[in-house]
Amino acid sequence: MPRFEPKNPDYRAVATATFAAQRAMRTLGISIARIEPGEVDLSMAYSPDFTQQNGFVHAGIITAGLDNACGIAAFTLMPPGSDILTVEFKTNLLAPARGERFMFRATVVKPGRTLTVCEARAFAEEDGAETLVATMTGTLMGLARRGPASSQDGK
Amino acid sequence: MPRFEPKNPDYRAVATATFAAQRAMRTLGISIARIEPGEVDLSMAYSPDFTQQNGFVHAGIITAGLDNACGIAAFTLMPPGSDILTVEFKTNLLAPARGERFMFRATVVKPGRTLTVCEARAFAEEDGAETLVATMTGTLMGLARRGPASSQDGK
Amino acid sequence: MPRFEPKNPDYRAVATATFAAQRAMRTLGISIARIEPGEVDLSMAYSPDFTQQNGFVHAGIITAGLDNACGIAAFTLMPPGSDILTVEFKTNLLAPARGERFMFRATVVKPGRTLTVCEARAFAEEDGAETLVATMTGTLMGLARRGPASSQDGK
Amino acid sequence: MPRFEPKNPDYRAVATATFAAQRAMRTLGISIARIEPGEVDLSMAYSPDFTQQNGFVHAGIITAGLDNACGIAAFTLMPPGSDILTVEFKTNLLAPARGERFMFRATVVKPGRTLTVCEARAFAEEDGAETLVATMTGTLMGLARRGPASSQDGK
Repeated sequence: MPRFEPKNPDYRAVATATFAAQRAMRTLGISIARIEPGEVDLSMAYSPDFTQQNGFVHAGIITAGLDNACGIAAFTLMPPGSDILTVEFKTNLLAPARGERFMFRATVVKPGRTLTVCEARAFAEEDGAETLVATMTGTLMGLARRGPASSQDGK
Repeated sequence: MPRFEPKNPDYRAVATATFAAQRAMRTLGISIARIEPGEVDLSMAYSPDFTQQNGFVHAGIITAGLDNACGIAAFTLMPPGSDILTVEFKTNLLAPARGERFMFRATVVKPGRTLTVCEARAFAEEDGAETLVATMTGTLMGLARRGPASSQDGK
Repeated sequence: MPRFEPKNPDYRAVATATFAAQRAMRTLGISIARIEPGEVDLSMAYSPDFTQQNGFVHAGIITAGLDNACGIAAFTLMPPGSDILTVEFKTNLLAPARGERFMFRATVVKPGRTLTVCEARAFAEEDGAETLVATMTGTLMGLARRGPASSQDGK
Repeated sequence: MPRFEPKNPDYRAVATATFAAQRAMRTLGISIARIEPGEVDLSMAYSPDFTQQNGFVHAGIITAGLDNACGIAAFTLMPPGSDILTVEFKTNLLAPARGERFMFRATVVKPGRTLTVCEARAFAEEDGAETLVATMTGTLMGLARRGPASSQDGK
């Protein structure tokens, strides 16, 4: 049983379309692994293109995944015609982001009319084991979408 | 007069080499614009590859620039043989990251033997005007570098 | 010249009254030292009643001062009939909070219709010297006040 | 089965003594409700002395409880002879802190030799129901205690 009741019966299609409109996600190789009301898992393969000086995935890239997981998780609970933006987030880096694949799992902690608070965790998968590498708490804001195409055309 | 006295006379070369060893920075098109003891400015051109659904630069990418500016700023004050890692950071997104170019300006607030706290601001440049788009407070940790090549080979 | 133009000509009286309605501030011995549009300094004398195990002022008490300075600073820029609440904040503790007196200095970084972002710094005064002991970045939210007495009677 | 193995067999006595040495906790009326390796619950009765302008408990006081729960939770996992200090924390305020009693529940997320990351949640109890009112993520640092009495005399 899902913890949250979506206000938009098309939440899955709308959230997926918003995700797909984010060119950054494509460039980073991040895709949706699971999407439920208030819960989203994103997945990213390791790429040397996004590493820091020790070959681990850069903290900013891990943050991009965490932030996006939070944003889509919050977005699944918003009414039709919404757009979403990140107000702020805080990330703790707990272990080197070393692995073949990374999962970003976000959950809504408190949905709200204006602000929604989410928590997310990043896990690195290496040799079949999963390590917690980072946490995020983020605040997202729902807005009325400005125009019919604004979240589709990506410009 | 610089606010801080570097412990490593080669701080500029070492910080620049560490930055250059970060493949993520190259991929994101981020370069060093200014480097002084405890202060670093990074610069990034707009690229549609790193945008969110409204065509603005993704919050995670802005965070990557802010985090790296903090990391290099902290690194300039570390003794020879140091490596650096980010412990945590917090970002507030203040305005859409819309512009032709972005600047990430970081300053050390409190250097420490183990932990260094930095603040950074991201500015978007558009039509000759600069807008503050995000702030970061971050905690960085200095470590003894593990091996002669660990921060050079980037793997 | 003030950086911000208040929307409420009575900003000073309203902000002072809201502060005075906070019994926590009286209990903690915190008072307003300076109030300008978007800028507030609060002052607190050391009291052993609010110390942690080493005799320094407890981080939560320092946070109460920082948060309140942010809240009042944001409040000075709100339209008449507003109430204010804290959405979130992040505090870095930089040095032991040891001193005879503490100052909490807050500045609005970005005012907004719904959300206002502030930064604040806590300083300890000891033997005539001032030490930076903590920083805060906080997000505040303006609301229409619910009833004529809700922010005056303090219950 | 506890999730963590304490390094100090006397963890409970030492953590309790450190808590008892914090005069701020006594003044705020906060006491230990539960203490296990890496997990601590603190309890606080409502007092009008610590309210903000609407009669809810002040965010700084809620933060003091959350921070202390994190600190003691981290402390239970530290080796003998340790002292502990808070590096930083981030708090989201989710609902008005209205109730007869408040619980602050902290868990260690990642223990470390130098740094320990904890998460905590504050709940308000009113008419037998519990409401989540705030969350914290905090970073704590373990130190060798400076002298035999340093964390005991503290006044």
